[in-house]
Amino acid sequence: MSEGKPLFSKMALIGAGLIGSSMAHAARRAGLVGHVSAYIPRAETRAKAEKAGFADSLHDDLSETVKDADLVVLATPLGAYADLARQAAPHLMKGAILTDVGSVKMPVVRDVGPSVPEGVHFVPGHPIAGTEHSGPEAGFATLFDGRWCILTPVPGTDAEAVEKLKDFWERCGSKVDTMDPSHHDLVLAIVSHVPHLIAYNIVGTAADLETVTQSEVIKYSASGFRDFTRIAASDPTMWRDIFLNNREAVLEMLGRFTEDLAQLQRAIRWGDGDALFNLFTRTRAIRRSIIEAGQDTAAPDFGRTPAKKA
Amino acid sequence: MSEGKPLFSKMALIGAGLIGSSMAHAARRAGLVGHVSAYIPRAETRAKAEKAGFADSLHDDLSETVKDADLVVLATPLGAYADLARQAAPHLMKGAILTDVGSVKMPVVRDVGPSVPEGVHFVPGHPIAGTEHSGPEAGFATLFDGRWCILTPVPGTDAEAVEKLKDFWERCGSKVDTMDPSHHDLVLAIVSHVPHLIAYNIVGTAADLETVTQSEVIKYSASGFRDFTRIAASDPTMWRDIFLNNREAVLEMLGRFTEDLAQLQRAIRWGDGDALFNLFTRTRAIRRSIIEAGQDTAAPDFGRTPAKKA
Repeated sequence: MSEGKPLFSKMALIGAGLIGSSMAHAARRAGLVGHVSAYIPRAETRAKAEKAGFADSLHDDLSETVKDADLVVLATPLGAYADLARQAAPHLMKGAILTDVGSVKMPVVRDVGPSVPEGVHFVPGHPIAGTEHSGPEAGFATLFDGRWCILTPVPGTDAEAVEKLKDFWERCGSKVDTMDPSHHDLVLAIVSHVPHLIAYNIVGTAADLETVTQSEVIKYSASGFRDFTRIAASDPTMWRDIFLNNREAVLEMLGRFTEDLAQLQRAIRWGDGDALFNLFTRTRAIRRSIIEAGQDTAAPDFGRTPAKKA
Repeated sequence: MSEGKPLFSKMALIGAGLIGSSMAHAARRAGLVGHVSAYIPRAETRAKAEKAGFADSLHDDLSETVKDADLVVLATPLGAYADLARQAAPHLMKGAILTDVGSVKMPVVRDVGPSVPEGVHFVPGHPIAGTEHSGPEAGFATLFDGRWCILTPVPGTDAEAVEKLKDFWERCGSKVDTMDPSHHDLVLAIVSHVPHLIAYNIVGTAADLETVTQSEVIKYSASGFRDFTRIAASDPTMWRDIFLNNREAVLEMLGRFTEDLAQLQRAIRWGDGDALFNLFTRTRAIRRSIIEAGQDTAAPDFGRTPAKKA
């Protein structure tokens, strides 16, 4: 590891919402980057980023953003990657590492891969971290602490570049795994994408009822529903792109989910208490494993403070 | 309001898990009860309750527990109510209030109502509060603070008794509403029962996969899945009884949920990004209303502290 010298002399963020801005905060905390540039085409969003103060330079010009950058990060919603990569490609420095933070990896390999110039090291990545808030003002330096980041290099990628990016993420606070991109997409479909879809769906179902008013749903949400609304408050553009881009894996996992749900529905209809009890006991053990693995807190109700009295 | 004198001279808890023990803690905090007795037939559970120290007397005899009590609370899983009410009935004091804390109310009216003796005021109730932990050692005094409690008295119930129980819950920290029992069951089906069923179901689906290992599910759970596991760690007996007892309303709401999910599934299959985006935008607004109503905290990720590094 170099002494005194940052790991990258310039990190260029293409897009800087929750994840991009948090990367800047975390990289600065650890002294990993000399200069942070960010490409943010909308003036209004640029003003927010300016106020948040995580970048050294803000641009509405892509070529200036990536010029001389030895680390370039695609951090927009997935749907914009292909165009942005094509536009940025001629301006990328030889030897630079190009990565991204998208929640699906096969389409990134498909959409970005063909644009990557000779001598640029393309290493797709996915930091598994986030909150329900979005935008450049939502980022913070500790977002990645103790969280996993998955890198999905294609065969033949320069091992040194992968190692350097791994080093970067670890010093941002993450634990790093590498994985085949298609396996990544299958794992994320079940641990993230289908849970989000279900949360969005039930919040929508509840909003459409005619026998129970929306104000009743809101008033009594503490009994379970409100945990779903947190997830269903995540960025709509980002999530639209995730579902459009991880279609096969999401549909596969969703098929299993609805199959299992049909069986539960039948158990309720026919009063099969044992089937319900057995499932409910089994799921409790999984919660325990997640707490033991340090992926969540054991504090009741996540340790959130009781809501204030109205 | 009486001065110095507690609201009830003796509160008898029939069962004392998370909710019952929390009622004792909260009632004592506010000086609402003279004596707290608790019926806990299992010696092992009684020992835990003894250690938790929320009751003045612990019993394996139901008649002793309820003797001279002016407030009697059914606080076991729903499936045990009918038998316990039948056994307790001959020993209830004239003028006593008999209530419960069950998450479904129509079956309580059906199962308990016929056993209630002349002169005893039966007022079913449901404090909408809880955590994923259960048992007599899981209770705490602030559980009901700022949370709703719904009372569902049947027509003809003594208004003074309803008022007194309302006073009790308010002084335990709750906000109180009264509602028709059947409407209660419909509201709870959508805000609580179906969300729990879905959470149990997806945790089960994830456990059964052959393409993604259970340790991968646990490792990467932070991306959405772990919020479901918290809900799916709730008490299995209690939840079995809820689904068996609120069958009609749960199946009705579940039917709507799966109908909506089928539509979303189709949108994903056919790449209808607008349909996805519109739903995801709509659900965000509901989250906002829940925070404005004081039913949750706006802190990212519920304000839970980051998991420690492994």
